[in-house]
Formats: sequence, structure tokens, C-alpha cells
Amino acid sequence: MDFTEKTLSSNEIYNGKVVKLRVEEVELPNGNHAKRELIAHPGGVGIIAVTPEKEVLTVTQYRIAFRKMLLEIPAGKLEYGEDPLSCGLRELEEETGYVASETVHLGEYYPTPGYCEEKINIYMATGLVKKEQHLDEGEFLTVKKFPLDTLYEMVMNNEINDAKTAIAILKAKAILDK
Amino acid sequence: MDFTEKTLSSNEIYNGKVVKLRVEEVELPNGNHAKRELIAHPGGVGIIAVTPEKEVLTVTQYRIAFRKMLLEIPAGKLEYGEDPLSCGLRELEEETGYVASETVHLGEYYPTPGYCEEKINIYMATGLVKKEQHLDEGEFLTVKKFPLDTLYEMVMNNEINDAKTAIAILKAKAILDK
Repeated sequence: MDFTEKTLSSNEIYNGKVVKLRVEEVELPNGNHAKRELIAHPGGVGIIAVTPEKEVLTVTQYRIAFRKMLLEIPAGKLEYGEDPLSCGLRELEEETGYVASETVHLGEYYPTPGYCEEKINIYMATGLVKKEQHLDEGEFLTVKKFPLDTLYEMVMNNEINDAKTAIAILKAKAILDK
Repeated sequence: MDFTEKTLSSNEIYNGKVVKLRVEEVELPNGNHAKRELIAHPGGVGIIAVTPEKEVLTVTQYRIAFRKMLLEIPAGKLEYGEDPLSCGLRELEEETGYVASETVHLGEYYPTPGYCEEKINIYMATGLVKKEQHLDEGEFLTVKKFPLDTLYEMVMNNEINDAKTAIAILKAKAILDK
């Protein structure tokens, strides 16, 4: 069935550095009208980098949205139009100092499709070589390696809250255990 | 290490039906100042409902953020302060007509911790009994059952884009296959 909503008008509320917010007036399949609050975002990328010993590079950083430190895979925000994989490999090197020679695409995810246009592409990276970490000005994080099996148990025990990190760990484990 | 960012001021940009947007001026660990765009959201819940035959109830609905139909687990938005599980079971019944007698918590996820305060709680529900579907005014979706193994293959083949749905399928499969 076709449940397409037709945009009748769009009103930009805010155009920020990370997000844009607009409200669209739409026509529903039954002809009624409704308002849709929509966040535009250039997209994100996350990289689960796995060593030959099946250890995974994590970054722990302060996330003001939750007023606490959060353990995540290395990740970044794209520029509008930027290629997710090259952005992800750059973020991996900047945040951890590692470069990777092989990557596998683990999928494109919509974190909150009800109101946000962000897409997060996730890759698994292997063939790691250590170079130099070089964080952005104002970027503060600690890098730590964990066995993939340890992170998998943490996901299964609900000890990892970041959605992209949970997906990356669950899929990497399924692929590498095959 | 403590990388806490200290909020110096907060400016509300928008207070909508689904999201609120504010910009905070913060002090970074090195003493510099930065701006943080932050989305407030009352929280979400998703339910992966599994039949005794290991089939999963899915809903397919139009998501204007991506201008297409999306396959997801039944889900909903909380009211501020609402209990996620009771909201989830109500959404399951409204969207699919099924009530569940048993639930397991599959975790609390932060879909986009860089700028959004939404938390999505995910549950697995079993002991299903079919009653009546009763969609909200203006809600249009189709319900379909799929074998859990089929959905798992779709996740592994990158054919499912909704993040909460991917996590729910991967974790339900790991738990039920044990």
C-alpha cells in the first residue's frame, strides 16, 4: 500500500552547525493535514576496527546529551556530500592513530527515522597499522582496546548504550565467528 | 579522565510536539568555550514480539524523513515521564492487535548521542494473543509476520535500515538460539 505523505509547505526553524530543524505541513493518505518536525543532518559514520587478536578499538568521550562518558566505536559527522568510508577512516586515524587496509560495509542505519534524516554508515576495518593520534581542537577522548568477545558480552548484558556501537559489535561478532 | 563539559548558558530555539531544540554554551576541559546543539525528546520504545513459531511482527510505514516506506518493529514515542514498557505494550496492541504476557528487556539505546537526548528502550515480547488492532487517527501501517531467521538474514545483508529494529533482531536471535 502507498502511504506517502505529500509535503504542502516547509518552514525552516533553525540552521545550525550540526542540525537543521524544519516543520513540514503534510497531507496524509486520508486527505487530512498534519505537521512533521524534521531534523536534517549531513550523516554519520562509525568504524569497528578489529586487530588480528580480535581486539576492538573503542573511544570514550563525554556526551553532554547524557551528562556522562560514553564508550563508542570511533565515529564522525560527515560534511554534506562527503563519502562515508573516507570520512570514517580519517576519523579512525585522528581519534585512535590507526590506519586500516581493509574494510567491509556493515550497513546504513537510520537512528531515529520518525523525525531525523541522519543516516549512519558502519564499517568493519582490519589490517590495522598504528600511526599518530591527532585529535581535533576541543576533542577529548580516551582510546582503549577490548576483546570483541568482551564487548559482545557487554552488549548482551545491556552495558553498551550507543546504538551504532551495539550494531557494529553484534554484526562483527556474527561475521568473524562464522 | 574527567572530560565533563560545563554548561554556561542555554538558549531554547524551539519547543515542538516531538522535539525541543536548544543551544548550550559550554566550557570544555581545556577552558575553551563551544556551542552544543541539543535535541530533547521524551524517549522511545520498540517491541520485538516473537510467536512460538519464532515469527516476528513487523510494521511497515511511511517515514517522511527518508521519503519511503520502512520496515520496523512496533514502536512508539513516550509521553514525558511515561514508563517505556507499558508504552511499548500499548503500541504493540494498537499497531498489531497483539497483547503479550512475557517481556525481556533488551537494553536502553542512545540513537545519536552526539546531539540528541532520546533513549530508546527495546523489549522482546512473547506469550502473544491476538486481539484488535486500533491505529491512532492519522496512523497508516501494514503488519506482517516474518520468520526471525529471515529478518536476521536481512540484517546481515544490510536490508534493514532502522537501527532499533536491527538491534532487536540481532539480540533476539542470539538469545533464542542459545
